Amino acid sequence: MEQIKSTSLATGVAYTVPDGSDEYALQKFVQSNQGKKIVAVQGLGFVGTVMSLVIANSDQDEYAVFGLDLATSNSYWKIAEINAGICPIVSSDPLVSEFFENAKLKNNFYATYDSMAFSFADVIIVDINLDVTKVKDDHGNIESYDVPLVGFKKAIESIGQVCKEDVLILVETTVPPGTCQKVVYPIIVESLKSRGLPTDKFKLGHSYERVMPGPNYVNSIKNFYRVYSGINEESADAVEKFLKTVISTNEYPLTRLKTTESTEMAKVLENSYRAMNISFAIEWSRFAENAGVDLYEVVDAIRLRPTHANLMYPGIGVGGYCLTKDPLMASWASQEFFGLESGLQSSVKAVENNDKMPMFCFDFVSNILKHHDKEITSIGLLGVAYGPGIGDTRFSPVEDFYKRLSMHFDNIKCQDPYVSLWAELNLEIETSLEAFLGLSFDILIVTTGHRDYLNNDSIYELIGRSGKEMIIIDTVGLLDLQKLPAYFSLNKNFYVLGVGHNED
Amino acid sequence: MEQIKSTSLATGVAYTVPDGSDEYALQKFVQSNQGKKIVAVQGLGFVGTVMSLVIANSDQDEYAVFGLDLATSNSYWKIAEINAGICPIVSSDPLVSEFFENAKLKNNFYATYDSMAFSFADVIIVDINLDVTKVKDDHGNIESYDVPLVGFKKAIESIGQVCKEDVLILVETTVPPGTCQKVVYPIIVESLKSRGLPTDKFKLGHSYERVMPGPNYVNSIKNFYRVYSGINEESADAVEKFLKTVISTNEYPLTRLKTTESTEMAKVLENSYRAMNISFAIEWSRFAENAGVDLYEVVDAIRLRPTHANLMYPGIGVGGYCLTKDPLMASWASQEFFGLESGLQSSVKAVENNDKMPMFCFDFVSNILKHHDKEITSIGLLGVAYGPGIGDTRFSPVEDFYKRLSMHFDNIKCQDPYVSLWAELNLEIETSLEAFLGLSFDILIVTTGHRDYLNNDSIYELIGRSGKEMIIIDTVGLLDLQKLPAYFSLNKNFYVLGVGHNED
Repeated sequence: MEQIKSTSLATGVAYTVPDGSDEYALQKFVQSNQGKKIVAVQGLGFVGTVMSLVIANSDQDEYAVFGLDLATSNSYWKIAEINAGICPIVSSDPLVSEFFENAKLKNNFYATYDSMAFSFADVIIVDINLDVTKVKDDHGNIESYDVPLVGFKKAIESIGQVCKEDVLILVETTVPPGTCQKVVYPIIVESLKSRGLPTDKFKLGHSYERVMPGPNYVNSIKNFYRVYSGINEESADAVEKFLKTVISTNEYPLTRLKTTESTEMAKVLENSYRAMNISFAIEWSRFAENAGVDLYEVVDAIRLRPTHANLMYPGIGVGGYCLTKDPLMASWASQEFFGLESGLQSSVKAVENNDKMPMFCFDFVSNILKHHDKEITSIGLLGVAYGPGIGDTRFSPVEDFYKRLSMHFDNIKCQDPYVSLWAELNLEIETSLEAFLGLSFDILIVTTGHRDYLNNDSIYELIGRSGKEMIIIDTVGLLDLQKLPAYFSLNKNFYVLGVGHNED
Repeated sequence: MEQIKSTSLATGVAYTVPDGSDEYALQKFVQSNQGKKIVAVQGLGFVGTVMSLVIANSDQDEYAVFGLDLATSNSYWKIAEINAGICPIVSSDPLVSEFFENAKLKNNFYATYDSMAFSFADVIIVDINLDVTKVKDDHGNIESYDVPLVGFKKAIESIGQVCKEDVLILVETTVPPGTCQKVVYPIIVESLKSRGLPTDKFKLGHSYERVMPGPNYVNSIKNFYRVYSGINEESADAVEKFLKTVISTNEYPLTRLKTTESTEMAKVLENSYRAMNISFAIEWSRFAENAGVDLYEVVDAIRLRPTHANLMYPGIGVGGYCLTKDPLMASWASQEFFGLESGLQSSVKAVENNDKMPMFCFDFVSNILKHHDKEITSIGLLGVAYGPGIGDTRFSPVEDFYKRLSMHFDNIKCQDPYVSLWAELNLEIETSLEAFLGLSFDILIVTTGHRDYLNNDSIYELIGRSGKEMIIIDTVGLLDLQKLPAYFSLNKNFYVLGVGHNED
C-alpha cells in the first residue's frame, strides 16, 4: 500500500501519514502531566493551534493539552511538527513562538490524530472547520449555497464515542445558529446512551473566539472580549469557570448570553456585519472611481462621526476563512433550522459582492492599461496573503485577481514577507522585498496592505531604485504619494483603487 | 379668486397666502440691519430654519438673515409665524426657541416668499428639499426610482435671476453627487450671462449639515464636524471663511474635500451607510425572532468590539426625510451622471428593506395576537414621530404600521409628546401621556422610542394604573421588563420586536 505524505506549509518537509493507534504516547503524556487537567482541542487550524498554546500557557499552569487533527495529507504535518518542536504557525506575532517554546519546555502540549485522546479529557474544545459550499453562475452571482454537516457530525461522534460522562464540551467552531442544540447535543446524548452512560452529566457550551491572525494573534484570543453560553445553567457555569482560567477576563469581561443559539448567532452576525461593511465600500468604490472622487478622503471625513466610525476603506476585496462564508452559514441556518423563507438576502449579497471584488480590481487595472501605450512584459504583485500582517492565503482575493491577470499576461511575480509557498496555486513566493524590487517591472501592483512594506520607508527607497518607467497600482491604499519618487503622480503613473480619475 | 390658506403645523392657525411683492419689507429689513452682511437661506424646512437661527446668532453678530420659502399652502405658514414672532419648529431642544427669541430681539431674521431677497445677499444658502420618487410593486419591492430635478432647477434659477455677481452660493441640500457641477453651476452661469454680468466672480460651494432634530438640534448644526468643498479654490476658501463665522470650527474642525462631487457623495454615503446598518438589523430581527434569540443582548455583546460599535438595534423601521431617500439619490446619480450601469444595488436594497419594516412589525403583532384568545376592542400607539425626541412625522414608519393596523382594527388611538396633529393622516394626537394611559387598551404598542416616556419612570407607574389585562408590544426596545408591574412577563403579555419567543 502506498504511503500518504503530508507536506508542511511551514517548512516544506514531507511527513509520512501514520495509520496506527497513538495510544501509548497518549498514556505517557497523561502520566507525565499528572495533577493537571486534560484539555483536548479538536482541530489544529488557525484557531485550534493558538487556542491550544493559550491553554497550555494558562496563568495557573493547570492544564495539559492534547491537540487533535486528522491523519490526512492536508493536516498531519501539523501534528508531526508540533511534536518535533516546530511551530506550525508562521506569524508576525512573536508571542506565538514564545508560547510554543514555553509549552515545549513544560511538555504540556502534545498533538495527535488519535481520537482516544478525548477519553482523557476533562474539557474538549471543538475548533474544527465547517465549510460552506457555493455555486455561482458565470457572472459570479451566487446561485446556491449549502453547509454540509457530514464531516462536522463525524467529528462530534468521535467525541461521543469515548468522552467522559461529565466532560465539558465547548464548541468554538463557527456553526449555523442552532447547531449545538440541534446537532451536537443529540449526537452526544445518543453516544452516551449507546455506551450505557448517563446523559445528564455532560456539559455543552458555545463560545467563539475573535482570532485575528497577525501581529496580535495570541492576544486576540487571550486578551479580548468573549461571549459564551451553555445549553443549560450548569453548562454555562462550567464554560465560564474554564474561560476564566485561560482568558484575561478581568480586563475583558465575559458576556453570557441566554442560549447557545444566541452566541452562535452573535458570531455569524459579527462577521456578516463586517462583510456587509466591506461590500458597502466596494460598491461605493466603483461610484467614486467613475465620479472622479477620492473615496479615501471621503471615508476619512465621515469617520469623524462616532456613529460612522466602522465605515471601511475600499480595497481589493475580502478574504480569509470567515467573512467569505459566515453570512451564508447564517442565512442557511435561518432557512434550514428556523424556517425563515427568504434567508438573509443582504448578507448573501454582501458575500457575492465581496467575491466579485478581484474581478472589479482586474477591470480597474485593465482600464488603466488601456490608457497607457505600453507593452507589458512583467508584472509584480506585492502581497498574496488575504490581509495585512498574516501568512494566511485561504480565500485570498489576490488568488482570483492573480488568475485573471495570468490569463492575459505572462511573467507575473509575487512577493510576500509571510508566504514562501502559495499553497492554493503551488507557487514559490519571494519573501525578500529587496530582492523582489531589484527585479524591474512594467507594473507593480500592491495587493496586500502589509505594514512591513512601510517600515523604515524601505519600500519607497526600493521603488526609487527600481524603475522610472514603472506604473504603480495600489489596490489597498497602502502607499503615500508624497513619499514616492517625485516622478510619480496620481492617475498618471500611480493609481489607487477607489480613487477616481477623470478620463480624458 | 379664492384665497389660498396655509395652516400651521405648529399652532394650527390658518394664514392667507399672499401673492404680491414683499420688496418694501425687504428694503426696510436691509436698512435696519445696515453694516451687517446679508445671508439668504433658501428653504425654511427642518434644516433651513435652524440654520437661519444659527447664522442670526453668530458669535460676531455680523449677519442679517433672510429666510425664504414658497407662498404655498404647505409652506407659507412658516413665513407668517416667523415674522409674527412664533417659532415654527416644535423641538425638545430649548436652544431652538432661545435662538429664535434672540433673533427676534436683534431683529436680524426676516422670512419672505419674495426671491428678490437674493438680490441683497452676500451669501445664499440652498436648503430646499429635493425628493426622490419611488415606484413599488405589491410586495413593497422597489421597481424604479427617480430624482425629478425640475423644482430644484427652478429654485436655482430664481437665485441666478437676481443674485449679485460675486455672491457665494452654498448648497446644503442633499443632492445627487455631481449636481453642483452639472446642474447648479451651468444655471448660474447662464443667468449671469443673460444679465450681461461676468461669470467668473461668483463662488459656488457645497457643505452638508448633519442635523439631528431632537434634543441637540441646534448643536447638531453649530457644534459638529462639517465637510465642505468648492467648485474651485476661491469658492472653497469663501465657504471656509463663512462657515468659520457660524460653526464652532475650533472644537469641530472643518474638513475640505477636493471636489463638490466628493462632499455631495460624502453626504449620501453617510446616510446610505446608516440606512444599510438599519436594514441589516431588520433582516437579523426576523432571524432572531424565529430562533428564539434576544437580538438586543446579541447586539450589546458584539458592540463591545470597537470595530462593531455602529451595529444597530432592531426596531420598527427607519423614517424621516433622509435615510428613506438618500441611498436612492446616490444610486440614481451613479447611473445618470456617471454611467455606473448597475447603480448601487445594496443601497437600494437597504431602502427597500427598511421600507418594508412596518409590514414586518405588523406581522409580528398579528402573530402575537393569534396566540392570544382575546377580543381586541382598543389599541394604543405610543409615538408617531419617526424617531426619539422629535416631532417630525415625515416618512415615519409608524404611518405605514398604523395604516395596516387600521385595516384590521377600529379604535386605534395615538399619543406623542411632540405631535398634536399628525399631518400625513390628518389625525389629532394626544400629547399628554397621563391622559392617554388613563384610557384602557387591550394592546399598548410602543412605536417611537421617545426618552420622555422614561422620565421619572412615569410610564411604568401609568401602565401599572391602567390595566392588568393589557398586552404590551414594544417595537423599539424602550421599556425595561424589570420596571414593569410584576404581572408582565416576557413573551406572555410583554413582547419586544427583535426578541424571539419559542412558540409552543
